[in-house]
Amino acid sequence: MELLGMFDELSHGLADLPMFPYFEMAHYIVSVMALREQPGALEVSRVSPLACWFSSMLYCFGGSVLSGIMLAEPPVAPLSNGPVILLASLVWYLVFYSPMDMVYSCTALPPIRVVLSGLKEVTRTGKVLGGVTMAHNKYKDSLLVMIAIGWARGAGGGLISNFEQLVRGVWKPETNELLKMSYPTKITLLGAVLFTLQQTHYLPLQRHHLMLLYTLFIVVNKVGIRHSV
Amino acid sequence: MELLGMFDELSHGLADLPMFPYFEMAHYIVSVMALREQPGALEVSRVSPLACWFSSMLYCFGGSVLSGIMLAEPPVAPLSNGPVILLASLVWYLVFYSPMDMVYSCTALPPIRVVLSGLKEVTRTGKVLGGVTMAHNKYKDSLLVMIAIGWARGAGGGLISNFEQLVRGVWKPETNELLKMSYPTKITLLGAVLFTLQQTHYLPLQRHHLMLLYTLFIVVNKVGIRHSV
Amino acid sequence: MELLGMFDELSHGLADLPMFPYFEMAHYIVSVMALREQPGALEVSRVSPLACWFSSMLYCFGGSVLSGIMLAEPPVAPLSNGPVILLASLVWYLVFYSPMDMVYSCTALPPIRVVLSGLKEVTRTGKVLGGVTMAHNKYKDSLLVMIAIGWARGAGGGLISNFEQLVRGVWKPETNELLKMSYPTKITLLGAVLFTLQQTHYLPLQRHHLMLLYTLFIVVNKVGIRHSV
Repeated sequence: MELLGMFDELSHGLADLPMFPYFEMAHYIVSVMALREQPGALEVSRVSPLACWFSSMLYCFGGSVLSGIMLAEPPVAPLSNGPVILLASLVWYLVFYSPMDMVYSCTALPPIRVVLSGLKEVTRTGKVLGGVTMAHNKYKDSLLVMIAIGWARGAGGGLISNFEQLVRGVWKPETNELLKMSYPTKITLLGAVLFTLQQTHYLPLQRHHLMLLYTLFIVVNKVGIRHSV
Repeated sequence: MELLGMFDELSHGLADLPMFPYFEMAHYIVSVMALREQPGALEVSRVSPLACWFSSMLYCFGGSVLSGIMLAEPPVAPLSNGPVILLASLVWYLVFYSPMDMVYSCTALPPIRVVLSGLKEVTRTGKVLGGVTMAHNKYKDSLLVMIAIGWARGAGGGLISNFEQLVRGVWKPETNELLKMSYPTKITLLGAVLFTLQQTHYLPLQRHHLMLLYTLFIVVNKVGIRHSV
Repeated sequence: MELLGMFDELSHGLADLPMFPYFEMAHYIVSVMALREQPGALEVSRVSPLACWFSSMLYCFGGSVLSGIMLAEPPVAPLSNGPVILLASLVWYLVFYSPMDMVYSCTALPPIRVVLSGLKEVTRTGKVLGGVTMAHNKYKDSLLVMIAIGWARGAGGGLISNFEQLVRGVWKPETNELLKMSYPTKITLLGAVLFTLQQTHYLPLQRHHLMLLYTLFIVVNKVGIRHSV
C-alpha cells in the first residue's frame, strides 16, 4: 500500500518536473558532444562555425524540426524560443571552443557522461509524449500518425542524420536509421507505441505512471549499458 | 445517337465508380511489385522490414506526400487513413513475405500483371483530377499550379524516387524523372494539362467525358505496350 | 541640409520604385546566366528542357521557395504568380535557346553584365526586407527567425544549391553555402541582420534610409568587384 502511494507520488513529481533548464541542458551537452565525436566534425567547427552551429541545432532540436515538417508546421519554430536557443548555443560554444577544451574534457569523463546521459533520457519521455499529444490533437484516432510523430519528436536527430550530415559536407546514403536502427531510436519507437496506446486507452495505465515507468526503463538502460547517443 | 448515349452513361458510371478497395488494391500490388523488382530491394526487405515498409508506402502514396508538401499540407496525412494503410500494408506483406512467395509468383504472371496494371491505371485518372481540383481550391486561376499539383499527385512515386531510394540506402543522383521522364510520368503530365484545361473551361468537354477518354487512353496504352509500373 | 533632403528624397524614391518588370528581369537574366555557366548545364538544356526550366526557376525563385518551406507556406506559391513566371520563363528560353545564342552573347558582354548585376542587386534589398517582415508577422519578437527568413529569402538560390543541382543530376555533397559562404550569401546575411535590427528598433534608422544605404552598398560592391553571382 505504502509502496504504491510512493510510486504515485513519484510519478506525479516527475510529470510536474520542469525540464528547462537543467534536464534540457544535459540533453544539449550530450547531443553536441555526440556531434563533436563524429569524424570530421572538429574540422568543420574550425572552417565554418555557422555550419557547425546549424548542425548542433539539428542535433538538439531535430525532433521538433522533423515532427514540424511532418505536420506542416514551421520547421523554423525552435529558433523562435529565445532562452532555449540561447542555452543550446552556449552549450555549443563551450563544447567546441572553450579554452584548453576544458568543458569537453570534463563532460567526457565517464562518470559525468553517464550522469548527463541519464538526465538527457528524462527529456525523451516528455518529447515522445509531446509528439503523441500533438498528433492526437490533429488526427484524433489515427494510431499510426501518433506513433510516427511521437517517434519523430523523440528520435528526430537520428532520423534526419542524413540531412544533418549534408550540412557538414558529409554524405553517407548507404545507411540511415530506418535501415539500421540505433538503440535510442528503437527504444523511442517503443515509447511512442506505449504512449499512443495509453492515449487511446488501449493501455489501461494512468499517463503519469507510464511516464515514470518508461523514464525509469530508459534511464536504467542508458546508464547500465553506457550506450552513447 | 445511341452510341453517344452509351458513352455518356459509361462516363457517368466511371466517375461514380468507387476506387476503394479493388482498384486501389491493384495500384498497391503493382506499386509494391515495382519496388520489389528494384535491385537490392529484396535484401532490404530481409535486413530491415521497416525501411521496406516505408519504401512501399512511398511507392503507394508518393503522390499524396509530394502534393501535400507542395501545398504545405501534412505529408503524414495518408497515414491517418486507417483502412487504406491497412490494405497497402497487407499487400506489402504478401508481396514480400508470403510463404513460398506464392503471391508474387501469381501476380507476376504476365496475364495477371497486365490486368492489374490496367486496373491501376484507372486510379491514375482520379488522382490527377483530385490534384487539379485541390490546387484549384487554393489557387483559383493558376494553370501552372494546377498542372504541377495534378502531375505530382498522379506521378508522385516516380518524381520522389531519389528520396525513396535513399530510404533503402541507394543514391543515384545522376538520374531523376525530370531529366529522363518515364512513360507513366509523361502520360500523367499530359493528363494534368488536359484536366487543368477542362477545369478552367479552355477545353470544352464535360469532366466525366474527359475522365472516360483519358482513362481509356491510359489503360489501352498500358495494356498494349505492357510498360511495367 | 540640402544634402540630407536629397538623401531623404532619394530613399523615398527607392522604397517606392516598382521592381517589376525591369529590375526583376535583370535578376532573372543574371540568375539564368549563372545557371548556364554551371558545368553540364548546357547539356541538360538539350537533353531535358523541363529539368533545365525547373532549375532556372529554382535559381530565380529559390528564396521564396526556401522561406516558404521554413514558414510552412506552400513552396509552390511562386508558380501562382502568372506574369512573373511568364517573364522568368521567357528569360530562360532566350538565354538558353535564342537563335545563334544572340541573347547570351549580348548579356555576357562585360559592360552589359555589370549593369545587369547592379540592377539585380537592387532587388535583393526588397527580398531581404520582405523576408524579415514576413517573419515578423508570424514570430513577433524573434530576432533569429527574422534573420533566418530574411537571409533565406535574399540568398535562397545559393542556400538550396545542393538540391537545385540534384534536379540536373549533379550531386556535390562535399560543399554547400553554409560550409563555404559565397560573397552574395555573406552580404545577404549582413542585410538580414541589419533589417532585423531596424525592424525591432535596435537600429535607430528609418527603414527607407537603411534601404538606400544597403542598396548602395551592395550595388557598389557588386559593380566594383565584378563578382558574378
